[in-house]
Amino acid sequence: MIGVGLTRAAIRAAAGRQFAEQGYDRTSVRSIAREAGVDPALVAHFFGTKHRLLVDVVELPFDPEQVVPVIFAGDREQIGRRLADFLLATLEDPEARRRITGLVRAAASEPEAARMVRALITREVFARIVDALGVDDGDLRTSLVGSQIVGLVMARYIVGIEPLASLPPETVAAALAPNLQRYLSGPLDASGREGRE
Amino acid sequence: MIGVGLTRAAIRAAAGRQFAEQGYDRTSVRSIAREAGVDPALVAHFFGTKHRLLVDVVELPFDPEQVVPVIFAGDREQIGRRLADFLLATLEDPEARRRITGLVRAAASEPEAARMVRALITREVFARIVDALGVDDGDLRTSLVGSQIVGLVMARYIVGIEPLASLPPETVAAALAPNLQRYLSGPLDASGREGRE
Repeated sequence: MIGVGLTRAAIRAAAGRQFAEQGYDRTSVRSIAREAGVDPALVAHFFGTKHRLLVDVVELPFDPEQVVPVIFAGDREQIGRRLADFLLATLEDPEARRRITGLVRAAASEPEAARMVRALITREVFARIVDALGVDDGDLRTSLVGSQIVGLVMARYIVGIEPLASLPPETVAAALAPNLQRYLSGPLDASGREGRE
Repeated sequence: MIGVGLTRAAIRAAAGRQFAEQGYDRTSVRSIAREAGVDPALVAHFFGTKHRLLVDVVELPFDPEQVVPVIFAGDREQIGRRLADFLLATLEDPEARRRITGLVRAAASEPEAARMVRALITREVFARIVDALGVDDGDLRTSLVGSQIVGLVMARYIVGIEPLASLPPETVAAALAPNLQRYLSGPLDASGREGRE
């Protein structure tokens, strides 16, 4: 078991370094395996695809493959609400909060970490949301949603802006939901010029 | 001139250290003057009030005292649009962008800097907006607006999430404006549960 643990740790370390230094695209399961001194089949055995390895390395506290379909299935006009509820509930968990604030802090401070976070978010989370939305401007809508989420993490959990920092999660989710919903399904151009949507 | 420059620099350094280490409230013009080895009257002469010294030290690239009334005066339903336009126009300027991304990075990485940024934003910017709004829940509305703004800075300028990172500022401002507007004047509770506002 110790050998397996060390091998997994070596693969994770190699993946983390390569994702951060050369970016997601130029990293392969093969190059990670080479650096970790193992067979590529072992990387696949332990971690599955390169996508899943990235998620494992940056320690996202949820599995986007499981979560995105649940949030984005069903009534489209309630996606904002489901997303806000999921987000605030997840961030109530101390360990999940630690990982997410760690990711945001890393993204803000180190260009290499920023690249890794960008790769993770774009490929593993955003791409699934864009697919689920199935609209032409899904990438812009998703990145706008992302901007609000990272801003919430900064304001509520990192900088601690009041009263946002100490309000109950349900109150914050209710305040956030319609804004997430507009980014997902509302008109994005010129509507501000004409007044409220 | 060199003497004046050095004196100003000494005052700035003392203020920066005290704001960061002991927080805004427990820092006084008198304690800053003492550390800088100058008369408090000289601090007032160079920088005006403690508020203005904080703004000077953290190098906000605009004067909230000038900007907030302009954005928040006039048609209330267009505040979101004016705020979005101002924000994106400001961030187009390389020096202003450098200062703002520096502030956000500092807030994300160092607890002391986070405290200083929080003090600055709360007192110098948010308090003016809350006053200008003149509503009971102005502090929550303002902190929600703040969460979207810091998230935009992170997503567009620091992490570089596409297509948000390379779209023209006008497009981003138009996409942002109605969301800022809802935080400022829309219903904040339960509206997400019922569908779009």
